[in-house]
Amino acid sequence: MIGRLNHVAIAVPDLKAAAAQYRDTLGASVGAPQDEPEHGVTVVFIELPNTKIELLYPLGEGSPIAGFLEKNPGGGIHHICYEVDDIHAARDRLAAEGARVLGGGEPKIGAHGKPVLFLHPKDFNGCLIELEQV
Amino acid sequence: MIGRLNHVAIAVPDLKAAAAQYRDTLGASVGAPQDEPEHGVTVVFIELPNTKIELLYPLGEGSPIAGFLEKNPGGGIHHICYEVDDIHAARDRLAAEGARVLGGGEPKIGAHGKPVLFLHPKDFNGCLIELEQV
Repeated sequence: MIGRLNHVAIAVPDLKAAAAQYRDTLGASVGAPQDEPEHGVTVVFIELPNTKIELLYPLGEGSPIAGFLEKNPGGGIHHICYEVDDIHAARDRLAAEGARVLGGGEPKIGAHGKPVLFLHPKDFNGCLIELEQV
Repeated sequence: MIGRLNHVAIAVPDLKAAAAQYRDTLGASVGAPQDEPEHGVTVVFIELPNTKIELLYPLGEGSPIAGFLEKNPGGGIHHICYEVDDIHAARDRLAAEGARVLGGGEPKIGAHGKPVLFLHPKDFNGCLIELEQV
């Protein structure tokens, strides 16, 4: 069911510093910051040859990563995203296996403009997993 | 400097259950458990089309992930691994930028039989980063 690892998302306490570090110290290909007001984050995409790293920083009130950064003030890996072909089929298979889908189980449009779901980290070894239909 | 994302390593409290979940619930290609006594872990490799997930479980006394699982009993993402062409050049560049390399700064042979270094998570947004020479 799951396909490619679409991205690893890292919540960071200082987006400018983190982007500069990936560009200058780690020598990666780092994009410009992009505000995603509908998702409450500003994102910097780091293009690796086989996948992406997404640096996340809170944007506006009620950002979904504000609480994470309160608990992890130095930052940390927030989630990993696997691609799926059919998000509804994935949701139904997960539900049949007893895995909890966050937010009521209906896919939403994610930061890449594609349908996504998030799976409960307690059901997946402490990892917040995003599924994105590609 | 950094190239492909070689793998994401997830420490899990129950390796058999986690492997079964990735195989049966998430429908991924999951290998057999491999004991790595020199590294204090048993590993299950999950092959995605573009990278790998490594499920890690402690093996023997003094496993490097035992403390992590004590702090995170439900499991969690332990580290991410970026590939580099030249581990010594990477080490020197990182040292010049003031980033801390764990374990004295000398590359060791990692679980894949290749030279690796680990970078201090406090210097990298709370992420433990492994660099592997490929």
